[in-house]
Amino acid sequence: MSDSHPFDADTAVTGTGPRFEATISDRWGVVGGHANGGYVLSVCLRALRQALDRPDPLAVAAFYQRRVLPGPAEVLLDLGRSGRPLATGGARLLQGGQELVRVVASFADLSQADGPTLVTGSAPALPAPDDCVDLFGELPGEADLTAPGITGRLECRVPRLPGWRQGAPSGRAEAEFWMRLAGGRQPDTMALPGLVDMAAPAVFELGHFVSTTIELSVHVRARPAPGWLACRVSTRYLIEGYHEEDFEIWDSAGTLVAQSRQLALLLS
Amino acid sequence: MSDSHPFDADTAVTGTGPRFEATISDRWGVVGGHANGGYVLSVCLRALRQALDRPDPLAVAAFYQRRVLPGPAEVLLDLGRSGRPLATGGARLLQGGQELVRVVASFADLSQADGPTLVTGSAPALPAPDDCVDLFGELPGEADLTAPGITGRLECRVPRLPGWRQGAPSGRAEAEFWMRLAGGRQPDTMALPGLVDMAAPAVFELGHFVSTTIELSVHVRARPAPGWLACRVSTRYLIEGYHEEDFEIWDSAGTLVAQSRQLALLLS
Repeated sequence: MSDSHPFDADTAVTGTGPRFEATISDRWGVVGGHANGGYVLSVCLRALRQALDRPDPLAVAAFYQRRVLPGPAEVLLDLGRSGRPLATGGARLLQGGQELVRVVASFADLSQADGPTLVTGSAPALPAPDDCVDLFGELPGEADLTAPGITGRLECRVPRLPGWRQGAPSGRAEAEFWMRLAGGRQPDTMALPGLVDMAAPAVFELGHFVSTTIELSVHVRARPAPGWLACRVSTRYLIEGYHEEDFEIWDSAGTLVAQSRQLALLLS
Repeated sequence: MSDSHPFDADTAVTGTGPRFEATISDRWGVVGGHANGGYVLSVCLRALRQALDRPDPLAVAAFYQRRVLPGPAEVLLDLGRSGRPLATGGARLLQGGQELVRVVASFADLSQADGPTLVTGSAPALPAPDDCVDLFGELPGEADLTAPGITGRLECRVPRLPGWRQGAPSGRAEAEFWMRLAGGRQPDTMALPGLVDMAAPAVFELGHFVSTTIELSVHVRARPAPGWLACRVSTRYLIEGYHEEDFEIWDSAGTLVAQSRQLALLLS
């Protein structure tokens, strides 16, 4: 894993465990200045991967308790069983001695997976990335939704600009689009758990622009091929402000590589 | 919470924390003799609820590392933030000093939820329970799928017997049915996280009858009305043996009350 790309450099941890040190970068900030939850999760997974000695984060759950700010942080691990095919452990991310995020993850070696396959869902039906529009290509003056942090780390291509980007949310909390890390870093299983939380939330299309994640669960289903990732996001149940967001990532070869669900709460 | 019903009696914990004692009952056993994962999760949530002092398990994730057997167990808590509206903590269930299951949960008071509601999904379209068939009503001699443990704790009603119950799996990993705890115990938010893992797995309809849960994530969305629960289960992505199972529970008033996803691995 090269540390030259911002994703790798900014998720790096130092130490030998169970305590690691990290530096939360402002390059993954969202509106409000705190760090994106997918990025913070990726920092915790870097520490867990080192301790669990397996390549692929198969199943991941993150509980967001407080906002994480740019600056120093520590990651404390509490390992569980290391067996076959899984090794499991927990991570707590702290700043100033306060626990902000708690993660549990089971790592495996997905190249060893061996069993039946039957897929009934299908990849998003998108025009080629070059025939799509850059979601952040022509930013309007009102930059509330497009803070300078994380939007510079990602490239998103859409068949047409969504309603919320034109000041007219469609009322349908669903979208399909292409996504990749900016700067040419190819996707891998360590990038997928963070990416599911980095795109525009589906509730933007309902006219709700501030939402906080309570819990995020990610299942990594395969190692992604290089290239653009086809994404599908939706929210079907907004109940008293609480809502789920389902996210799928398919690779450039048409394989489902990650599936996630988060529970979030509207703040506006 | 009355302890007279098996669900309440068998999930009881004693102690004042952070260490609790529990007794895993054989009344919630599955084929193989180990305890159902939803039941084990419910034991952990009983300890967390006592420590976190909030009524409703809003978001729950459980990582299953080893099988849990009938007999004594201990539940060790590791609490996180207690704020508003959430209080978060972790629980590890051990037997013989070995960690078997790890749970993290955020509890809240769902009666205090206050925000916009927009529901685009719909409840299962089922005939009334009395016009349905008892899934376990006429058990065949080959009791492999219908061990004496947990099937006696549940009542399930189906519009018609599923293919797998007639020796002819349909090939479509999806089902809609009614479910309730046997013995008249009404549903509440403490029962929902376990119930999502207690019905017949969707992959039974693919002819796969042995599957082990790796991770289960549950979001409790509302307090259920008394009566039968309408359930919807599906698996869309079986990849190299790994598969997700999505589960929805709707109450008798037609409200979505729980939503879950688990990652599981076929063992046969």
